[in-house]
Amino acid sequence: MRSILVLNGPNLNLLGSRQPEVYGRVTLKMIDTNCIAQGKSLGAQVVCQQSNHEGVLIDAIHAAKGCHHGIVVNAGAYTHTSIALMDALASVELPCIEVHLSNIHAREDFRQVSHISKVALGQICGFGSLGYTMAISALIAHLEETG
Amino acid sequence: MRSILVLNGPNLNLLGSRQPEVYGRVTLKMIDTNCIAQGKSLGAQVVCQQSNHEGVLIDAIHAAKGCHHGIVVNAGAYTHTSIALMDALASVELPCIEVHLSNIHAREDFRQVSHISKVALGQICGFGSLGYTMAISALIAHLEETG
Amino acid sequence: MRSILVLNGPNLNLLGSRQPEVYGRVTLKMIDTNCIAQGKSLGAQVVCQQSNHEGVLIDAIHAAKGCHHGIVVNAGAYTHTSIALMDALASVELPCIEVHLSNIHAREDFRQVSHISKVALGQICGFGSLGYTMAISALIAHLEETG
Amino acid sequence: MRSILVLNGPNLNLLGSRQPEVYGRVTLKMIDTNCIAQGKSLGAQVVCQQSNHEGVLIDAIHAAKGCHHGIVVNAGAYTHTSIALMDALASVELPCIEVHLSNIHAREDFRQVSHISKVALGQICGFGSLGYTMAISALIAHLEETG
Amino acid sequence: MRSILVLNGPNLNLLGSRQPEVYGRVTLKMIDTNCIAQGKSLGAQVVCQQSNHEGVLIDAIHAAKGCHHGIVVNAGAYTHTSIALMDALASVELPCIEVHLSNIHAREDFRQVSHISKVALGQICGFGSLGYTMAISALIAHLEETG
Amino acid sequence: MRSILVLNGPNLNLLGSRQPEVYGRVTLKMIDTNCIAQGKSLGAQVVCQQSNHEGVLIDAIHAAKGCHHGIVVNAGAYTHTSIALMDALASVELPCIEVHLSNIHAREDFRQVSHISKVALGQICGFGSLGYTMAISALIAHLEETG
Amino acid sequence: MRSILVLNGPNLNLLGSRQPEVYGRVTLKMIDTNCIAQGKSLGAQVVCQQSNHEGVLIDAIHAAKGCHHGIVVNAGAYTHTSIALMDALASVELPCIEVHLSNIHAREDFRQVSHISKVALGQICGFGSLGYTMAISALIAHLEETG
Amino acid sequence: MRSILVLNGPNLNLLGSRQPEVYGRVTLKMIDTNCIAQGKSLGAQVVCQQSNHEGVLIDAIHAAKGCHHGIVVNAGAYTHTSIALMDALASVELPCIEVHLSNIHAREDFRQVSHISKVALGQICGFGSLGYTMAISALIAHLEETG
Amino acid sequence: MRSILVLNGPNLNLLGSRQPEVYGRVTLKMIDTNCIAQGKSLGAQVVCQQSNHEGVLIDAIHAAKGCHHGIVVNAGAYTHTSIALMDALASVELPCIEVHLSNIHAREDFRQVSHISKVALGQICGFGSLGYTMAISALIAHLEETG
Amino acid sequence: MRSILVLNGPNLNLLGSRQPEVYGRVTLKMIDTNCIAQGKSLGAQVVCQQSNHEGVLIDAIHAAKGCHHGIVVNAGAYTHTSIALMDALASVELPCIEVHLSNIHAREDFRQVSHISKVALGQICGFGSLGYTMAISALIAHLEETG
Amino acid sequence: MRSILVLNGPNLNLLGSRQPEVYGRVTLKMIDTNCIAQGKSLGAQVVCQQSNHEGVLIDAIHAAKGCHHGIVVNAGAYTHTSIALMDALASVELPCIEVHLSNIHAREDFRQVSHISKVALGQICGFGSLGYTMAISALIAHLEETG
Amino acid sequence: MRSILVLNGPNLNLLGSRQPEVYGRVTLKMIDTNCIAQGKSLGAQVVCQQSNHEGVLIDAIHAAKGCHHGIVVNAGAYTHTSIALMDALASVELPCIEVHLSNIHAREDFRQVSHISKVALGQICGFGSLGYTMAISALIAHLEETG
Repeated sequence: MRSILVLNGPNLNLLGSRQPEVYGRVTLKMIDTNCIAQGKSLGAQVVCQQSNHEGVLIDAIHAAKGCHHGIVVNAGAYTHTSIALMDALASVELPCIEVHLSNIHAREDFRQVSHISKVALGQICGFGSLGYTMAISALIAHLEETG
Repeated sequence: MRSILVLNGPNLNLLGSRQPEVYGRVTLKMIDTNCIAQGKSLGAQVVCQQSNHEGVLIDAIHAAKGCHHGIVVNAGAYTHTSIALMDALASVELPCIEVHLSNIHAREDFRQVSHISKVALGQICGFGSLGYTMAISALIAHLEETG
Repeated sequence: MRSILVLNGPNLNLLGSRQPEVYGRVTLKMIDTNCIAQGKSLGAQVVCQQSNHEGVLIDAIHAAKGCHHGIVVNAGAYTHTSIALMDALASVELPCIEVHLSNIHAREDFRQVSHISKVALGQICGFGSLGYTMAISALIAHLEETG
Repeated sequence: MRSILVLNGPNLNLLGSRQPEVYGRVTLKMIDTNCIAQGKSLGAQVVCQQSNHEGVLIDAIHAAKGCHHGIVVNAGAYTHTSIALMDALASVELPCIEVHLSNIHAREDFRQVSHISKVALGQICGFGSLGYTMAISALIAHLEETG
Repeated sequence: MRSILVLNGPNLNLLGSRQPEVYGRVTLKMIDTNCIAQGKSLGAQVVCQQSNHEGVLIDAIHAAKGCHHGIVVNAGAYTHTSIALMDALASVELPCIEVHLSNIHAREDFRQVSHISKVALGQICGFGSLGYTMAISALIAHLEETG
Repeated sequence: MRSILVLNGPNLNLLGSRQPEVYGRVTLKMIDTNCIAQGKSLGAQVVCQQSNHEGVLIDAIHAAKGCHHGIVVNAGAYTHTSIALMDALASVELPCIEVHLSNIHAREDFRQVSHISKVALGQICGFGSLGYTMAISALIAHLEETG
Repeated sequence: MRSILVLNGPNLNLLGSRQPEVYGRVTLKMIDTNCIAQGKSLGAQVVCQQSNHEGVLIDAIHAAKGCHHGIVVNAGAYTHTSIALMDALASVELPCIEVHLSNIHAREDFRQVSHISKVALGQICGFGSLGYTMAISALIAHLEETG
Repeated sequence: MRSILVLNGPNLNLLGSRQPEVYGRVTLKMIDTNCIAQGKSLGAQVVCQQSNHEGVLIDAIHAAKGCHHGIVVNAGAYTHTSIALMDALASVELPCIEVHLSNIHAREDFRQVSHISKVALGQICGFGSLGYTMAISALIAHLEETG
Repeated sequence: MRSILVLNGPNLNLLGSRQPEVYGRVTLKMIDTNCIAQGKSLGAQVVCQQSNHEGVLIDAIHAAKGCHHGIVVNAGAYTHTSIALMDALASVELPCIEVHLSNIHAREDFRQVSHISKVALGQICGFGSLGYTMAISALIAHLEETG
Repeated sequence: MRSILVLNGPNLNLLGSRQPEVYGRVTLKMIDTNCIAQGKSLGAQVVCQQSNHEGVLIDAIHAAKGCHHGIVVNAGAYTHTSIALMDALASVELPCIEVHLSNIHAREDFRQVSHISKVALGQICGFGSLGYTMAISALIAHLEETG
Repeated sequence: MRSILVLNGPNLNLLGSRQPEVYGRVTLKMIDTNCIAQGKSLGAQVVCQQSNHEGVLIDAIHAAKGCHHGIVVNAGAYTHTSIALMDALASVELPCIEVHLSNIHAREDFRQVSHISKVALGQICGFGSLGYTMAISALIAHLEETG
Repeated sequence: MRSILVLNGPNLNLLGSRQPEVYGRVTLKMIDTNCIAQGKSLGAQVVCQQSNHEGVLIDAIHAAKGCHHGIVVNAGAYTHTSIALMDALASVELPCIEVHLSNIHAREDFRQVSHISKVALGQICGFGSLGYTMAISALIAHLEETG
């Protein structure tokens, strides 16, 4: 059975209450629930993790090796600043899809730079919480294809 | 019944034969067929159009107003250079989703700039032809939500 | 009798319906009518043309040679991206005045770059549709002066 | 009766003798006379002032509040360097039109930056002394419209 | 009773011993004591926290919501690099004042960029430990005013 | 008895009427009165001066030498453009504190550059009129410490 | 028998009359004639095409596949702005040589950027109409060498 | 007896398995063993520590003060982004040598920026695991010299 | 008899007391005396003027026309910021030599930009007060040569 | 009889052995032989010279004056760094054609800058050793035309 | 027996007398002696050469091919400006180690750019003369490993 | 008796014949003669040297130590590109004055950068051959003052 890690970065624990005009009213818990359900419906296990600590996120990526078959990652603000996270994803050589709730390309300049993109299969942004389940489907499709 | 325009820009007519290591082996015809089928399964009409001419693409966007409820657009290389296309999309005020076959954020610098992004709901890139059907689903979900 | 070409670029056909808070509620048809009337009152013929196609605009500029005595041009978004249009205007060596409905210098950075400016007599921007008739008057004054 | 301030900045007192190949042979006195006549013909009072001192120009803008209904300004070289003048124009909240004798967009790079533009209704450049009377007409038209 | 969080970032635990010619000889403990005393004298509770871990600082900001009425923050070197901290402060929507011991605007270029500034009420820098008590007074004044 | 010069630059004479959403409703007169009172309460004389003229401000700084013990300066827009003011402050070698009503670091890019900062003890911005009295207190504290 | 497409871009139809001090007095017709003759003398068919429309040029490149063995291209101003043309040339995988009448490297900065160069065998510029026959010879030599 | 801290940053725990074509097949454990042996042979104690957490690395540097006589640091990706680590090293005022396994100056642009360099004695890069023992020797030589 | 204007800009009135380690201990009065003596010895009248006001300097340059045969100018900090002064010098078309006490090319970046240079015959910097008399000699030599 | 200098810069003496995948397998000797033969066939003398010393190349250009009628130059890496070579070519006022073996515009950024281009008739690059004989033909054609 | 060339660039002949606070008091002769001794102790011949002439250094690199097995190079200031030296090192395909006496990454910006790095195995900087013997050891280790 | 080296760089041997509209008609021989005469009149020996070779110029500067008391240098195009020359001048610690025939600050951007300036006492440019004798006088004055 396939297993997918959904990894969320800084401030995403506040989803639902944080600037809802930008990030919507869905909570992280609801996203986790949706992700697990979407995985289930496609025959895959989904494990969700969130941290505000860059180091914890790196450790989680390292731990994913040999444990999960792919990663869906929304690194929040670390997307734009963390080369260490990019290196971690490259190191474990697991397929990874980048998700953002908002359309980062239509926001401030500094939010349009993504280190994660350099090592991701692809990027989905601007669809709110729907982006996560889209990413899970796309990741499973990729795993099936590359088998 | 909802109607969606799928608009493809320059060189996408060559899909399948053009640099398959970058863009894959699926032809535009197969993508069109998939899009129409995906639309049908979600109760929406999908119309596909491709042109290598920036002006024809602008005309098509103008014509979409009052005729379609949303646009899925892969503007190819015009993504990076055409303010006129961005203005056309802004002018007709239809929801629009941007698709790219490859992960443009992991390629040359000039492919990481998108004028289309400034006026799109969101962006999906790096998933090959799958990105189109993901976009159609997301657009219909958006239309239902804002419906 | 003097003859002036008024050339409008991409998306200007949508005037009146397109983002009226930026571009006003006057339609292109009304602008054309005003231009013709203004020309008439100053003893000049005015011919109006619009296209969303860069190539059609270049062809029109080429055709203006030997046919018109000057050009009033609002190249829309091509203002900011088209060196080919600039070269076309330089090639036919007709006096040309650049018009913009909005004050492009108070908008996004990319709208503050004009290739057209490099080959125009002058620029009028920020006065909405009035800018066109100001340009016709100024062009006729220039033609009279340079005889 | 409407009243308009025509404000000229540094070195414009030398008009007619200063680099006539760039700025023409018309003197500032002649421009002032034309402006007053143009205002009169449109039922408005025109007052003209020139200074080489940035502080005097700021004082004049402040004094215009409650005394004039709009400002036509050619800030000369201060156009490119003075944020203080821009702030002064923003502070008094009078409609303002920016004029330049030459087409500044076809000159040196540093002359293509205008702080004044950020707070002006519009810009007219490249028409020599004619630009001033065009500006007066456009300003009166604006005052009538927003009346 | 009002409550204020004073949050100090990386390396500030070394205050007093670290480069005293730049940062002075006052220790963080003395600053904490002063802050608490200043709060007391103005009828407010002050809680002080320091960490070298970006994630711990983000967690502390999240925890401040519903617990404190405002934040005085000296994010140390994270000021210049952490978008995540800026987002955390924006998320909790508490008034925040930025403090720096040295005048960061007179130091290296990279110390003149502050992400914190984008979401702070104001900034106080260059006054050594005095800056903290100034910030507490200003924050309480702001809380009283916006009441 | 200590004496402090409070120096205000261009457009600050309009305070209270100028863009109150940015600069507040307090007038310069009220600020002057507060500064004098604050000085008095701390045993220092405060003299207030405002000018829209860069040269007058430089002359005032020169005159401060041998007459005042320190300067509180809000150079308005000259903050961002005047190297001459910076040199004047450096020349007289009086301690100087920079004040801004708004948080200049959260505004337009050009307002985030301060030449004054290079020669000031410190900067206080974003606290409206309160910033001036904070600066007077901090300056007197500095004079006492180094006294 | 080898076949070569000679493709000319915007404004090159005006050759001979357009700014002869820059581009010379030879017409495009004469260049076409020379190219055909040069091809003939080397045993190759030469077909010449010109358009001011970017889209038409892309279509022509697509059509060249399976029809011609190589392309000599002078994309005029599109050289500097069109990623779509570059992509078209890369897509058809035909050997291509870039020609410019003037020495673009000794002209304005924006004329020194060539997207075409990234996918061309080589570049010949500054030799006026002679450059085309040089390119035909070099292209045939290349075809012979790579067989 | 001299004591040296060897500090390794993010992702270096994966050495040996992570992109061996870039970083080699030696594990961190083997590097630690070599470092300890090298120290021993030169009469110095070597203590090795690794963390993926920026904050933990800062804490370790602080703790080194009074405990070790110098630091050999490979800060991994934090080399390029962490001003806080640089400040930590500057704060403790211990001699420090920067090591990188690969030649960072021959890699991506962002890997050529090192904040650590600003406070290090010197840099050794491109020699794989050998670089660590070179650094230990050089650090001991430095300690002996400055003794 | 030839007449030369020696024009000094902001803060130069403080010479002798201002940062003597940069600008030396000679006063402006002594420089004026030396200039007049040097002029006398070469058969020319020298008039010296200083102002901290940009506008006064511009007025003085305008007044020099028809009154002096050349200008020696040290525009102080306005050298780096004033396009208006450059334009004034260009307008009066008098030969002008630029002098700086310190070697501005070995100082801060912003002091290495000179608008004055664009319209000056030449520049002399780094020789302290000696530079003025060198400039007077060079200007008289130029006047004699172009006679 | 016409005489042409073929001048080769640094590292070109290694041709044939140096990175043959970039520069081909032809030796400099073979190129020299081809150049001399090509010259002969067109009635011109060709003299070939190579040096790794910038100064020797400058001396050779100086010596060409009065001795040769034109220069074909491949300045190797000095193309990108030597203003002195550009000045030397400008000084002797001989027509000059720039040759490069590889298509420098499709290589690293720093190889796309050519100081030589600013003073050359034209540039030929990407055709390997063939470029030299093309240049000789073009230079002789130019000499015949300008007579 | 292995042979290594130690190549020193401009101004390194002055070592010991040149700015000893930056470069130390060791002379080049002493460095040469140390290098030869270090080579001897590791069973390798070391030949030392210095020149202030870029061309001589290039010639020496060319001559090293077939004569030496590797190069230790301190190109002095040519490190930052010479693409020709980089090309020479790439051409001979000998392993090369870059040495600098000072930590160039902690000095002026222009000293932080190294063309040599792009083709070197690794870089050692900041260790004074010790760096040379470190480099010899590392180079011999490399030769043995790849041997 | 004082001794001064006058050092001229690349292409200056062509003076008189090279672009006389920029550099004048005076030959280097005449400049040398004037310099020697000027030195003699001030009691100093002047030795003149010119080379097109950067290495020869560096050698000459090294040789000047212990032989001359100061250097007047016009490094020609090496002014803008040679860090090695700058380092040579810094190494010998002789006072040095930079001369340029033309006003380099009013020419192309790349001629406005001078590495020599960073280590020179001062700069004299724009006075043609007169600049050399001005430099000799200023250098002797400096030697006397610091003597």
